[in-house]
Order: sequence, then C-alpha cells, then structure tokens
Amino acid sequence: MAPPMGGQEESHMESHSPVADPGHVVKSSPVMIDGVALNGPTLDVSAAEGFIQQSMAIIMEDAVRKATNVREKVCEWRSPEQLKELLDLELKDGGEAQSKILQRCRDAIRYSVKTTHPRFFNQLYAGMEPYSMVGSFIIEAIKPSLYTYEVAPVFTLMEEAVLKKMMEFLGWEEGGDGIFNPGGSVSNMYAMNVARFHHCPDIKELGLSAVPRLVMFTSQECHYSISKAAAFLGIGTKNVYVVPSDKRGKMIPAALEEQIKKAKNEGAEPFMVNATAGTTVLGAFDPIEEIADICEKYNLWLHVDACWGGAALLSKKHRHLLKGIHRANSVAWNPHKMLMACLQCCAFMVRDKTGLLQRCHSARASYLFQQDKFYDVSYDTGDKSIQCSRKPDAFKFWLMWKALGTSELERRVDRAFAMARYLAQEIKKREGFRLLMEPEYANVCFWYIPPSLRNMPESPEFWQKLHTVGPAVKERMMKKGSMMVSYQPHGDKVNFFRMIIISPQASREDMDFVLDEIDRLGQDL
Amino acid sequence: MAPPMGGQEESHMESHSPVADPGHVVKSSPVMIDGVALNGPTLDVSAAEGFIQQSMAIIMEDAVRKATNVREKVCEWRSPEQLKELLDLELKDGGEAQSKILQRCRDAIRYSVKTTHPRFFNQLYAGMEPYSMVGSFIIEAIKPSLYTYEVAPVFTLMEEAVLKKMMEFLGWEEGGDGIFNPGGSVSNMYAMNVARFHHCPDIKELGLSAVPRLVMFTSQECHYSISKAAAFLGIGTKNVYVVPSDKRGKMIPAALEEQIKKAKNEGAEPFMVNATAGTTVLGAFDPIEEIADICEKYNLWLHVDACWGGAALLSKKHRHLLKGIHRANSVAWNPHKMLMACLQCCAFMVRDKTGLLQRCHSARASYLFQQDKFYDVSYDTGDKSIQCSRKPDAFKFWLMWKALGTSELERRVDRAFAMARYLAQEIKKREGFRLLMEPEYANVCFWYIPPSLRNMPESPEFWQKLHTVGPAVKERMMKKGSMMVSYQPHGDKVNFFRMIIISPQASREDMDFVLDEIDRLGQDL
Repeated sequence: MAPPMGGQEESHMESHSPVADPGHVVKSSPVMIDGVALNGPTLDVSAAEGFIQQSMAIIMEDAVRKATNVREKVCEWRSPEQLKELLDLELKDGGEAQSKILQRCRDAIRYSVKTTHPRFFNQLYAGMEPYSMVGSFIIEAIKPSLYTYEVAPVFTLMEEAVLKKMMEFLGWEEGGDGIFNPGGSVSNMYAMNVARFHHCPDIKELGLSAVPRLVMFTSQECHYSISKAAAFLGIGTKNVYVVPSDKRGKMIPAALEEQIKKAKNEGAEPFMVNATAGTTVLGAFDPIEEIADICEKYNLWLHVDACWGGAALLSKKHRHLLKGIHRANSVAWNPHKMLMACLQCCAFMVRDKTGLLQRCHSARASYLFQQDKFYDVSYDTGDKSIQCSRKPDAFKFWLMWKALGTSELERRVDRAFAMARYLAQEIKKREGFRLLMEPEYANVCFWYIPPSLRNMPESPEFWQKLHTVGPAVKERMMKKGSMMVSYQPHGDKVNFFRMIIISPQASREDMDFVLDEIDRLGQDL
Repeated sequence: MAPPMGGQEESHMESHSPVADPGHVVKSSPVMIDGVALNGPTLDVSAAEGFIQQSMAIIMEDAVRKATNVREKVCEWRSPEQLKELLDLELKDGGEAQSKILQRCRDAIRYSVKTTHPRFFNQLYAGMEPYSMVGSFIIEAIKPSLYTYEVAPVFTLMEEAVLKKMMEFLGWEEGGDGIFNPGGSVSNMYAMNVARFHHCPDIKELGLSAVPRLVMFTSQECHYSISKAAAFLGIGTKNVYVVPSDKRGKMIPAALEEQIKKAKNEGAEPFMVNATAGTTVLGAFDPIEEIADICEKYNLWLHVDACWGGAALLSKKHRHLLKGIHRANSVAWNPHKMLMACLQCCAFMVRDKTGLLQRCHSARASYLFQQDKFYDVSYDTGDKSIQCSRKPDAFKFWLMWKALGTSELERRVDRAFAMARYLAQEIKKREGFRLLMEPEYANVCFWYIPPSLRNMPESPEFWQKLHTVGPAVKERMMKKGSMMVSYQPHGDKVNFFRMIIISPQASREDMDFVLDEIDRLGQDL
C-alpha cells in the first residue's frame, strides 16, 4: 500500500516550480539514478499542510481544551497489557491513511496523563502555560538547533537575554555565563564538570586516573541526579560525601565542615559543594550563606541546585530563602518547574566571566565552528555545550516572560506559596490528616490516616499499616482519574503524600477537593 | 500594566465550577493567605485557548507554509546587532498584550533560518516531516515526561516498540535494550559509560581514580562528541587514541590494531572502540566487520556511532555499508537526521539483555521509582537514564513510521543516495567544480573554483586563494537567502562545500540550482 503522502511524484510537480530563480530551469525529462526518478519533490506539501491543519484542531480540542478542563479526567488508566492492545504499536511495512493517523493522535492524547490538568499535582511541574506552549510549537515547526548563530540567530540572542535576566535575579551584578540544556540533571553534571575543571584543568585531557581522588559534598536530601552525575562523570558515587540534614531537610553546615575535614584526613581532594534550594520531597532550602562561608574557607566550588526553588527569587516576599545565592559559583534553575515553561527549560549558569564554560567543554569542531565566518563567531555558542544539536528552550521562557512580565511571574509564585499554606492549614483542621511539617515552599507533605487506624497506638504495626495507605489511595485515584498526587517513603518516614502546588489553574477549591477525595478513596482502608 | 491573562480572578471564576465532583463544594467567601486571594483559578483558560488558536494560524502560515516554500527565502540574514534591535529582547516588569506577542511570534519565525526549506542543506538534518511535527505538537501540548509508566503510559510503550523495531534493523535477533535521549552526543556518552561499567563495574562507585588508565579508540574522522564525551566522563581527551582513516575517510583496521598494541605497551587499559557509520564531513562508513574482529580479539566493547548513517539500514540496496553492525555491543542512531523525525530524536541501543543499562545508571530514587506501585514497575524506565525529566522523542518517530511504513522510509533513503550521485555527476560535468571524492552516502563534498583561479597552477597560492572561496560564497548565499550549504576545511584540504541531501522536498532541480547559484555568487571571486 502506498503511503498517502509519498511516492506519487507527478501530483506534486506543479507545487514546486521555482520560477522566481532566474538561473533555475526546470528540466522536463525525468532523470533516473539507480532506478530512482529525481525530478521534482516527492513530498506533497499541500497535503502535508492539510494534515497538520486537521491535527491542530484535534490538539486544540483534546490536548488543550479537554486536557485542562477540571471536569475531565486527569488520566484514563490502562495497564501496559491493555494499552498495548488498544494502541496497536507494531511498525509495519506499509503506511496508514491520514484518517487513521489522526485517530492515532486522538488515542495517544486520550490515554496520556494530562499534566496540564488543574488537578495534576504529581511532579515538580504542572499546568498549562499558553505562551510557552506556543513558543514550543514554533520551535517544533521550524526545527532550529542552537550551535551556531548562522542556523539559530533569533534563539541565540534570546538565550543570551534570558540568561542575563535570570542572573540578575541571582544577584550576579557583573553577570556571568550560561547555557540551557535538557534537564536539571544535566545542569548538575555541568556544574560538577566545570567545578573539577576549575580545580584542575588537566583533567580535561588527562582524565581522573591522573589525579588524586576528588570528592564532593551534598546533603542527604539532594536530588538523585547528583549521584547519577558522580557515576557518569567518573567521579564515583562513593566520592559524593553525604551531609546530614536537619528535621526540616536543610543541610547542617557544621556537619558539612566535619565531612570536609574527614575527607581531607583520608587524603581525598574536596572540590565542590552542592547546596539544594528547594529539595525534591520536602521543598527545603539549604542555608546558602553559611555553606558559602565554608566553601570560601576551604576554597571549594559552590553549586546551588535551585532547579525547583529558584523561582522563589522572583518573589520579594520569599527570596530570602535563597539568601547568599549571589555567592554561588554556579546555579541550576529550571523555569519548566514552578514557572511553568514548557518541558524542558533548564538553565545552568556560572558566575565566571573568563570563558570557563567554553574552555571546559570545547572541542573546536572545524566543520561547525569555522573561524573564518563573516560574522562575530562569539555568537556561535555551541562549543560551550556537551551536546551538538541543542533545542532553543530559552525561547519558550522568553516569550512567556514578555507576555506576563516579571510582576505576573512574581504573583504566581506568591500564590503558590500561599496556596501551600492554605492546604497545610486545612490538613491541620481535618480529622485523619497529619502534616509532616509546615511547608517552606510549595511541597505539602502529609499522611492520611484512615478511620481504621485513627484510634490505634503509634506502634510499629500502625506505621506498617499506614505505609500501605499511600499506594492504595494512589491506585484508586488513578483508576478513577480524579487527580494525581504522589506518595513516597522518606528517610525513616513511611509512605506519605506529597502535594506540589504550581499552576494558577489550581484553586483553593482544588485543595479542598484533594483532601475530600483522599478521604473518600481511603475511608475503608 | 496588568498582563492580559492573569490577575483578573473574578472573570475566570465561572469557567471553573467543577460541579461534576460530588464532594466538591465551591466556597464563595474569598480566602486570603499572605494577602493572596485563593478562590478560583487565575488563569483564564478560554483566553489562553483563543491565543493558542490565533498562534496556530500564524505557525501554519509562516512556519509551515512559507517556511517550506521554495520561492521564499531560506533565511533573512541580520547581524547580531541588527537583530537585537529588531527583536527588543529585554524582559521587563510588565507584560505585553496578546497582539504584541503574536507579532513577536511572527518576528521570531521571520528571522529564523528555515531548516525545513527545500534548499537548506547545511546540517545533517533538514526538511519538513508533517507526522513527526504533529507528534511533537502533541508532546508540547500535554507535557509528558518519560520516567514512570504512571505519568507517560502511552509514550513508554511507544518507545519500547520503536526501539524493538530499530534493533530488528540492527540484526539483533535476540533484541536488546535502549533509550531515546537528547542528541547523538549524549548517546555516545552513554556508550562510553556503559562500556567502562561493563569493563569494570566498580567504577560506578569508586570512580576512575581507583582504576588504571582506561583508553578507547576512534577514527580521526569521528564526530567531535567523542572527544567531548571523554572529557565529560572523566576519561580525558588524551585517552582517546585516534586511529588513522584512509582517503575515503574509513578507519584503517590494521592501524586500529597497532594503536591497541601501543596502548597496552604503555600499560593503559583499552576498553572500547568507536566505529563511525556515516562520518560528519565525508559520510564515510568504517569497516564494522573488520573492526568487530579486532574487538573480539582484544575483548573490547564495540560501539557504532550510526547517528547519521544508521538510516542506510532501511535500504536493502545500501545496508551493506553497515555490514557487521549486528556484532556491535551498542549503537547510536538518530532518526532526526536522514529519517527526518523532528529534532530531537536519538536512540541509544545496547545488545545486552541483562539490565546493564539500568545497573549502570540507576540511582533508585525512592520518591519516583517506588517499588510498591500497583502496576508492573519494570515499565518505569527512567532509572536507565542519566536524565530525570525526559521527553518522549520516540513518539514522533513512531507516528511517522506508522504513517509512512517502512517501505516509504526505504524509498526516501534510496532517493537521497541517488540524488547525491546525481549531484556528483553534475559536479564532474561542470567547469569550475571539482568533486573531492565519489559520495558513499548523502554527503557531497566539492570545491568551486572561480574563473580567476581556473588557469592557475595548483601552487600553495592557489590553495590559499581557494580556501577563501567557501566563506565568501557562504556569506553571499546567506545575505541573499537563496540556500544554505556548509563549507569547512578538513585535514589537509582547504575549505570545500559539503552538501547534505535528505528531504523528499528537494529535487534534482534544486541540485542544479545549488550549482548554478554557487557559480553566480562566486563568479567574481
């Protein structure tokens, strides 16, 4: 079966007679090479446009309107086995008609989780941001790649503008350097690579086998990407020294200093501290100012993983949580989380202005970064990157920032903070709910204690039973499709719920709904 | 100035009265926390929809229809200084009206390079692929992240299906494992990390400082990401031993064996060979079969970087170029290059079926990869990844494969090969053009010799002058906007043009046009 858009060369010929080019003569005799006729394009662009147009209507209806409607389900749960049958995944020799493909688009949307739904509270990102969404559509349509100015002029400049503005919020009065990249995990890797290169530039050429054992420090509450990065970068997970946190989840500075001394006594070479601004589970902020003092004392690179918490910098009321961040050597900050830029949108920034990022990562590919170009090649930023093709994620954030202005971004952040406090208050008022701790950010952690456990003493058996409540309620909410809230054990705490509040689509009524719904779903447990 | 879509809470209330939820009572008294009113959503979803709808019309017209029209310019060149002025990049306190933002979308598209234009031949990707484009729009609209089945059920299964099919083309009869990730450079990093973990699993915990100097081998023609990866992974760029290639750009197997022996004599520990299938500049294919023999003999991991050349596997006529790839331990292959899936779409695959990829990269985050979930958690594939959030790039490829079928993909690959041969023939026929070598793949490398140099002896002065032709013609083509073709020096060769042929939108007429246009632009040089 011939696919609908290919293989029918004759019908596409007339759409492609570029008469505007004086030197271009359309040859009418078909040229055959290796049995392939080469005259004219074989893609029917107008048929393609028709398909895209029809798809856009489906996307608008199902992936935008329905997906964000609070009356619709957050998810339409199917088991892997059921879903495999529904989706008919196998790729075959023949193509399918456009109408079939449009149905496949509808199905893909239907069975996907609606992360833009007002009641999706499951991850550190959520909600619909229309400007950023449109920015991402533009990127997908014109397929830019951000290595050279010649291929991505607009987006190169926008990235620069966004980084400059973000660095203002870091309080880096003299600016710095930076790069957007695919995920906070990758940003943290950049930090570790730049920090060790700064510590010992020979590592780039000679590798780690030529230097003493390098060690770094992070809190027990840090994101798991630090451990992944240590493995990936050849540092080794055991050379990440874990610093205890206090009950709120904040790194204990005295414990950091102890660990540094311990490492030095062992003959290891400390090179970096990772502080977390907004931990993944508890939403805690490490005390950056005190950690910066210690880093100065021991001459260590200070990286702040502010992927989640960086947004608080936009709030005059709450930015004190990141006090001292102006002293960081590098910062990771993901506008795709609290600030709702479309996935992915992640900045890595260094305070250095001597070209460290470039020196650390450059490979000077002569086919891409030619030095005899006709424009200022300092705009070819690709050699700062560990990637070759790179998506212009900054554009999505630039466009929404232009539309909303800093003031609206600030209002949203303040509202998320306030909403988390409202939810915490309600939890404290309600029977059967118990708050783990007052929220510092937009993570609200709590247990739901079903009626059967409410009069039980807090014995090991109680905790064991409570541990099973999270998974059971989660299963029920997903099968019902009413909302998505995550649960997890944490340290010595059995499974509890973690609500993440981000989107301006979510209201106080949704907070009440979440508690009501958990109570409804868990009554009989 | 209030942004158009935020801050006017009262007007959005009625769009959000979720009466369908029996337990949900809308409270009418406003609740204030920290001075923030929390009733109702503050995002006007219907206004957002209106904006998205209007944007889609612009995207359709400017980023799809105009961008792919051969009569329109490929690029609208502006210098960084001019463009900064035109774009008004600064981010401000207040937001902007929707009409202004729509104009900004138009401007971003206008001044961007149209990589989907039939005359964009500048990179290893090009052209418009409507199905994959629609797939990417869907992804952007519903914002899935691929770590757990619960958040991305559809895309988890599609990734599995696509990898399975791609591994069939590798000839891995028993399958394997794999993951999509943001770029071929990252895929090559995966390969190096998996290979060294396989060589010595302790590295994950202990790091490279605990083991002897590990070295790897690649050809002088390999992609620069190998060098970047060696630096990033702590291996060190000097521990990448460069193997000479022959005149066509293929690794010389005997030279590889020599390098391995040399490394061993130095006391280094070889762990991996990278073979390239489709080099970046010349489009050469390393002799995989011979390299595999050597890898077996010395017990080395064989990785094949088939990011660019992997597509030839779909062609019965041309797949012999990758003969022996079934013996590779790992393969990187980017469907976003020759196969035209929207950027980015990059698969990394390992032949191992014992969970090596997972063991090598896992960090077992308990808040994300809970083991007490109600479904089969082997579908939570995120811990194989070095990322946390990860985009479901496989979906874009899955959708286009479903639409086109393997047979149309094969036809396209065969056509690109044939088109490259046609262009080479024409180059040989024309005065003032000189082919560097017969193309093996879809890269056609050639010099343009302007009239002033045609009767000159091939002295150092001749080559010096010829070296300046590429940059000069490139500047002119970009300022005119008529096409984009890259140039570069390479080894001992002065600047030459490299045409990359991919898209079915490009025709024989466009090949003729490129040669005519270079001749027009370079006549007076």
